[in-house]
Amino acid sequence: MSAQGGLFVSFEGIDGSGKSTQARLLADALRAEGHDVVLTREPGGSPGAEEIRALVLQGDPERWSAETELLLFNAARRDHLERTIRPALEAGRVVICDRFADSTRMYQGLSRGDLRSAADQLHALMIGVEPDLTLLIDMEPVAALARAKARAGSEERFEDFGVGLQERMRAGFLALAKEFASRFRVIDGNRDEVLVAGDVMAAIRGPLRTAS
Amino acid sequence: MSAQGGLFVSFEGIDGSGKSTQARLLADALRAEGHDVVLTREPGGSPGAEEIRALVLQGDPERWSAETELLLFNAARRDHLERTIRPALEAGRVVICDRFADSTRMYQGLSRGDLRSAADQLHALMIGVEPDLTLLIDMEPVAALARAKARAGSEERFEDFGVGLQERMRAGFLALAKEFASRFRVIDGNRDEVLVAGDVMAAIRGPLRTAS
Repeated sequence: MSAQGGLFVSFEGIDGSGKSTQARLLADALRAEGHDVVLTREPGGSPGAEEIRALVLQGDPERWSAETELLLFNAARRDHLERTIRPALEAGRVVICDRFADSTRMYQGLSRGDLRSAADQLHALMIGVEPDLTLLIDMEPVAALARAKARAGSEERFEDFGVGLQERMRAGFLALAKEFASRFRVIDGNRDEVLVAGDVMAAIRGPLRTAS
Repeated sequence: MSAQGGLFVSFEGIDGSGKSTQARLLADALRAEGHDVVLTREPGGSPGAEEIRALVLQGDPERWSAETELLLFNAARRDHLERTIRPALEAGRVVICDRFADSTRMYQGLSRGDLRSAADQLHALMIGVEPDLTLLIDMEPVAALARAKARAGSEERFEDFGVGLQERMRAGFLALAKEFASRFRVIDGNRDEVLVAGDVMAAIRGPLRTAS
């Protein structure tokens, strides 16, 4: 994606893996170094996409089928890409995104339905963009689930599916990291967040040099 | 689509063509004959799809790109299909739908963007269903536009694009009727609505016999 010197970095991982914290720490560290950073998230990240996020995540978890959810998340991603991500990259900024299309491959493709192929086709048709670098914060599911449940709010319905699903999702993310090996870096999240952040910084050095 | 004796009929046409009136008249006439009829519309037609409709049609016309709009309409259609259309057809009912995928082929595929190919691929991937019978109410654009403007409300933003666009849309719908000749019937809408309704009833006789 990085055409004009921008860099597109995504964080992925199971719920409670600490990826949102790491995304924020990376944004802070890069800003302290003088980089122009946009910290964003999915679903959401633009006014329209945030409205779609609210539509999907509020109310009865069964109110949308996995297929409808897949379409709504792609609509949100398309808006986010057009209004937030692409303009920032074209201005040469660093975009740090908490979740991107890999989360859809996992959540709609693996946990809610058997829609991985549909998710890939839809992505190719309507999105077409992958991050330059994807940081997978890999975390032991029991500890991650405890962390996710401790902070669960009204919108956290994706996080209430138990350890069995978390195990499957962890394995799914690790398989995805092998499938897209050239852009994925797997980081051990089972440690103090400062140590994890150090590995994140080390992983971004090369891509950052290439981009600027 | 008609597997268990149900019949799926859609009405299409440019804004102001009288298709919504004709859909209602057909529903009334079939009910009077004892048929079990579901009259519905797109975008919308199920609680979730109506929420997506509101999201798309309210506010600044430029708030969504044609691509995002295409995804949102497919999300609404998927929900409408799952929650309203498919259950009704499986119960052997007659579903009369004011607009279906052909409107997306025209509006997102022709008037708002050059997205006909994407619209077709998205439809094949996530919807996969066509009506048994599509009634195209063909209408002279100047008269249709005058009618559309006379009743224009806050939600009618698709209808404010002028006669030039209406001409293109009319030609587009007629071309679509040739492309899908086996399910399309073109009805001359430039007449009193009672005469138009008579032609609609004549067109539905055959499919109705086949279905029941």
